[in-house]
Amino acid sequence: MTTLHDPTIRGFASDNYSGVHPEVLSAIAAANDGHQVSYGDDVYTARLQEVCARHFGAGVQVFPVFNGTGANVVGMLSMLPRWGAVVCAKTAHIHTDEGGAPEKVAGIKLLPVPTTDGKLTPELIAEEAWGWGDEHRAQPLVVYITQSSELGTVYSPDEVRAIADYAHERGMRVFMDGARLSNAAAALDVPLRAFTTDAGVDVVTLGGTKNGALGAEAVVVLDAEASDGLRYLRKQQMQLASKMRFVSAQLIALLDGDLHLRNARHANAMAARLRAGLEAGIADGILRGIEFTQPTQANAVFAILPPGIADRLRERFRFYDWDAARREVRWVCSFDTQPDDVDAFIAEAARLLARNGI
Amino acid sequence: MTTLHDPTIRGFASDNYSGVHPEVLSAIAAANDGHQVSYGDDVYTARLQEVCARHFGAGVQVFPVFNGTGANVVGMLSMLPRWGAVVCAKTAHIHTDEGGAPEKVAGIKLLPVPTTDGKLTPELIAEEAWGWGDEHRAQPLVVYITQSSELGTVYSPDEVRAIADYAHERGMRVFMDGARLSNAAAALDVPLRAFTTDAGVDVVTLGGTKNGALGAEAVVVLDAEASDGLRYLRKQQMQLASKMRFVSAQLIALLDGDLHLRNARHANAMAARLRAGLEAGIADGILRGIEFTQPTQANAVFAILPPGIADRLRERFRFYDWDAARREVRWVCSFDTQPDDVDAFIAEAARLLARNGI
Amino acid sequence: MTTLHDPTIRGFASDNYSGVHPEVLSAIAAANDGHQVSYGDDVYTARLQEVCARHFGAGVQVFPVFNGTGANVVGMLSMLPRWGAVVCAKTAHIHTDEGGAPEKVAGIKLLPVPTTDGKLTPELIAEEAWGWGDEHRAQPLVVYITQSSELGTVYSPDEVRAIADYAHERGMRVFMDGARLSNAAAALDVPLRAFTTDAGVDVVTLGGTKNGALGAEAVVVLDAEASDGLRYLRKQQMQLASKMRFVSAQLIALLDGDLHLRNARHANAMAARLRAGLEAGIADGILRGIEFTQPTQANAVFAILPPGIADRLRERFRFYDWDAARREVRWVCSFDTQPDDVDAFIAEAARLLARNGI
Amino acid sequence: MTTLHDPTIRGFASDNYSGVHPEVLSAIAAANDGHQVSYGDDVYTARLQEVCARHFGAGVQVFPVFNGTGANVVGMLSMLPRWGAVVCAKTAHIHTDEGGAPEKVAGIKLLPVPTTDGKLTPELIAEEAWGWGDEHRAQPLVVYITQSSELGTVYSPDEVRAIADYAHERGMRVFMDGARLSNAAAALDVPLRAFTTDAGVDVVTLGGTKNGALGAEAVVVLDAEASDGLRYLRKQQMQLASKMRFVSAQLIALLDGDLHLRNARHANAMAARLRAGLEAGIADGILRGIEFTQPTQANAVFAILPPGIADRLRERFRFYDWDAARREVRWVCSFDTQPDDVDAFIAEAARLLARNGI
Repeated sequence: MTTLHDPTIRGFASDNYSGVHPEVLSAIAAANDGHQVSYGDDVYTARLQEVCARHFGAGVQVFPVFNGTGANVVGMLSMLPRWGAVVCAKTAHIHTDEGGAPEKVAGIKLLPVPTTDGKLTPELIAEEAWGWGDEHRAQPLVVYITQSSELGTVYSPDEVRAIADYAHERGMRVFMDGARLSNAAAALDVPLRAFTTDAGVDVVTLGGTKNGALGAEAVVVLDAEASDGLRYLRKQQMQLASKMRFVSAQLIALLDGDLHLRNARHANAMAARLRAGLEAGIADGILRGIEFTQPTQANAVFAILPPGIADRLRERFRFYDWDAARREVRWVCSFDTQPDDVDAFIAEAARLLARNGI
Repeated sequence: MTTLHDPTIRGFASDNYSGVHPEVLSAIAAANDGHQVSYGDDVYTARLQEVCARHFGAGVQVFPVFNGTGANVVGMLSMLPRWGAVVCAKTAHIHTDEGGAPEKVAGIKLLPVPTTDGKLTPELIAEEAWGWGDEHRAQPLVVYITQSSELGTVYSPDEVRAIADYAHERGMRVFMDGARLSNAAAALDVPLRAFTTDAGVDVVTLGGTKNGALGAEAVVVLDAEASDGLRYLRKQQMQLASKMRFVSAQLIALLDGDLHLRNARHANAMAARLRAGLEAGIADGILRGIEFTQPTQANAVFAILPPGIADRLRERFRFYDWDAARREVRWVCSFDTQPDDVDAFIAEAARLLARNGI
Repeated sequence: MTTLHDPTIRGFASDNYSGVHPEVLSAIAAANDGHQVSYGDDVYTARLQEVCARHFGAGVQVFPVFNGTGANVVGMLSMLPRWGAVVCAKTAHIHTDEGGAPEKVAGIKLLPVPTTDGKLTPELIAEEAWGWGDEHRAQPLVVYITQSSELGTVYSPDEVRAIADYAHERGMRVFMDGARLSNAAAALDVPLRAFTTDAGVDVVTLGGTKNGALGAEAVVVLDAEASDGLRYLRKQQMQLASKMRFVSAQLIALLDGDLHLRNARHANAMAARLRAGLEAGIADGILRGIEFTQPTQANAVFAILPPGIADRLRERFRFYDWDAARREVRWVCSFDTQPDDVDAFIAEAARLLARNGI
Repeated sequence: MTTLHDPTIRGFASDNYSGVHPEVLSAIAAANDGHQVSYGDDVYTARLQEVCARHFGAGVQVFPVFNGTGANVVGMLSMLPRWGAVVCAKTAHIHTDEGGAPEKVAGIKLLPVPTTDGKLTPELIAEEAWGWGDEHRAQPLVVYITQSSELGTVYSPDEVRAIADYAHERGMRVFMDGARLSNAAAALDVPLRAFTTDAGVDVVTLGGTKNGALGAEAVVVLDAEASDGLRYLRKQQMQLASKMRFVSAQLIALLDGDLHLRNARHANAMAARLRAGLEAGIADGILRGIEFTQPTQANAVFAILPPGIADRLRERFRFYDWDAARREVRWVCSFDTQPDDVDAFIAEAARLLARNGI
């Protein structure tokens, strides 16, 4: 097969617009040839267990799956009785972007809480954490948090710990959506376990795809008491890869060495460069009318643009509206974003916004 | 990452024990680099539509997904109202090997019918095709058939047509599980459309994984009237790949040229060699006590072995019991099975069965 | 069997604490003896169709069910494809009090919107009415409103019409939870159809239980285009009564004459008496520290009480906390609430609150 | 409301064509008036617990519900993890007559086994009781049996015990559908507990409706270890009656004294009279061409009739085809079936079949 696309074009739409990091591709090739037991009883999946034990602590259990929605649904399902509900931010990916999968395939009720920055706190969780024992209320038994969050913000280890303590005191468990877990580790400059296992998280997902994999996610059970039947649920929920060695090999490629951190640090640095460049332009009076709506802590920048600017900017760089009603947009950087991409974007923004300002 | 397994070992357990065909790996690499729109709005997925139109007819719609269970559930779900049921063989993969996914994630009721060779007929379907309009009975609205079947048998185009006519006359639709579709095409030596589109099948799945892909399946809607909401269902059922270009590239690698047929023909030929070799041994009186339970029409051989033989054979070659109660085993050949593998297996079987016979 | 309880005790906990109106009991007895076809093909269910046609218009279809949760789930399910979502008030019964039934048995995603008085408006619906065609978003296709609402407020026909117009313009349908439909009719002093069929509602539920029945609810399809498969869904969702003649007979008893209105008017009048009595006490300076949180438009009064008062008031009269965190309580009147009950309650409240005020 | 039907007409279609026994109606009236806590915290439901403890043993837990499908689904759901499956007879009500409710609202996979008389045995259960620990197979963890069965046959206490032992040895639980439980007790002339609690059944349903109630069923948990979350599941599955006192009062009316047995014995006796009368006619050569297909052990008679006879017999007596393809019909007797009804039916059958024989 020949290449059908222009491999030199990159934008700021999402880190899943990127391809596969060359080291991940090599790992897939290295795992190829010969026969390996399917459905997870292969040596690569066994090795992945060891790799994850190094990151998250001895005894954790890793379940590779296909995608983030699958990881979220399977992971939460393993933590909940049939009468369980999940407290989450109103901007939570499970509430806004998964086509209703939690409710529709798994019967999980969501109790969304408005936040300002995509992050829950004990106070916010308290809005929906009540009614245990009342059969008329789906029982709030899991708190779902996203690290880094859908708004590009990052929970500190202490913030996670406060949530975990609050939840555990009430018999609830903590699930962390780690689709961009490495971006958080890079942002915080701490090991993965500092804000997961060590901060009281019970089950975390490990996102490989946005970090440079072809397609590789995993559910990592940190506290075995918090999860039941994951093996059955993964199969039943259609997330069990037959040639699992290749999913595991991708995650090993990212996590055995420091590739996951290199990729995440780079993506974060590019977002910081973008934010800094735009802020410099604002400070210099070159960029007018742009307003940032969230701190840039990981690999995304959120901003409100003057009317008409977003579409004109999109003529050269692809990105998404976040909240069209208020003209908020999102720019995401990836492991393959180049400094030149960022600089060209800033220049184009300056050109459009300068003109705008006149 | 380094290779952790011995890439020279192969067995007869399943065609999903194999790795990735080199041409598929190349296609993944060719689709890499630069940005492509995620979730299916990429040029590779667009090209796949054209490729499939060539195979199945203009106007078919292709929906790449992660795995066979996902393809089956999403495909059938798109064909059924909430009160629908599916008539299938008792040996159907959806009934025996999907962890209850059809029932558990999709609420699909199955109406299994015993068969001798894994294949339905109008007469067999009639056992459960009744009760329309009676709200006490889940309505039988889809017939599920597998090509090639779970027992290694193949439907002729005429057999499919008879089923489709029977179903359509009663307001039912036909779903074909094509996890090994190319093996059937190779066995029948006809184009894919001869026993799908042209034989009245409404929705078919296209299996790439067992045919040499890393992980690539698709739902192909042949009659747009038969299916609704597939785009929403694929997302909701957690089968929507973010970096879909790579799933599509794998299927293009298999289907744009003749790789899918080369791989399937080879696997079928290896199964035929295995069957022929064993039968020759029987005819020569060298192999005693082995009894074949199904014709070998595609890439699998089913046989009953004398007590104790299967486990000793497994000391050198991996394969599965099919029905342990009656000592029935299954041997599957793959695109990467070598003639030497087959011959060594026959020799070992002869050694054990000759000894057995004494 | 002998009477085990004290039939002279009544409180303000809920209109489902009441028993059965004598005329309803007589209707059950009148429908007894002999055989009638089960599951709805009986003469009482046929008569109920005629009765409902008089109330809601020719061509409406009535489906008796067991309870309100069942009516809501079956009704909404018949209006939604598998990828549908429902916009509702955050206080909606389906969100707060049905144990997650919509999500858990029917896979319906809810999109709750905060309101001040339990009532949606086009502006409020707009917060979640967007994203059609985007497979990542469960599709908002039904608006759920409750008449009278969970907060005792009532939609005017014009308010319903505005919602229906807004919804229909966007391809959405309107579902009205009528667990207390007659209380709204009594409050508005208009026929049932004025704020249902004539105001653009597509499907409404008809609540008999809180209106004096033993247990009888129904889904009434006002626009046949808006609903599909209700007959199958009612059975599948376990809401199909075998001896349906008795469910239908109860609804006939309420609706064939004016019993439903007599009962509702009485309950509303008792709530008004309670509200007026308390307000008079406040005006007179006898009752101190009580604050009403909602208008009393139907048969419920909502108020915030000073600390400690609710539990002491409950020593004589049963009622529920509504929002314990802010000391808000709910008092509900029923068809069997007596003026003396209300007056005694007011007197006791005055006694406690006067003492409180000192 | 006036009586709309002819209360003197009775047929042989089903025991749910009957009305309410007068003692049950009286019990409903006795429980009326005044307020009682809704949703089960009333004195009638408390008394029902005591009544059931007398029948089934101390410590059993009773959960009144609306109908048989609800009782089955809620009961089984409380016994199964999400990956569980249920072994049942192919004629099981849950497989053939509940509109797919087990699969569709509860995600329960059924593993149906053909039987000759509607009764499972350890040998028959063994056909599907295997594969524990294999995630590709929904785990068979409950055996479902019906007492008396859908074919009018009755399990002896020893037969139930053999099933329970077989199941328990393999980690499975036993669920008994008791829609016609009292008919079995009457047939066996033993207490209810002899073939439930004492025979190893874990959860049983208690059918009131076909035994003379208006609408009252219950799930009775005999072994608390076998069931979890029933309270939550009953609500979530829409089976929680608000005015539960009336459901409980009906069951008390049947079970506190011997009404349930009187009714069942009468229904069984009428079926025996029907069977005996027809057999006498056959012996006398008056009735020709009728063939019984099942023993008549409870209140139903199954027979094959010559072509054309069933429809002519139905001109005077309502009843259902059981298996139209083989001209098998079912005649059911009820608590209100009169000897004259039976005799008239036999006379008409004789008239038609004599003529047939000529």
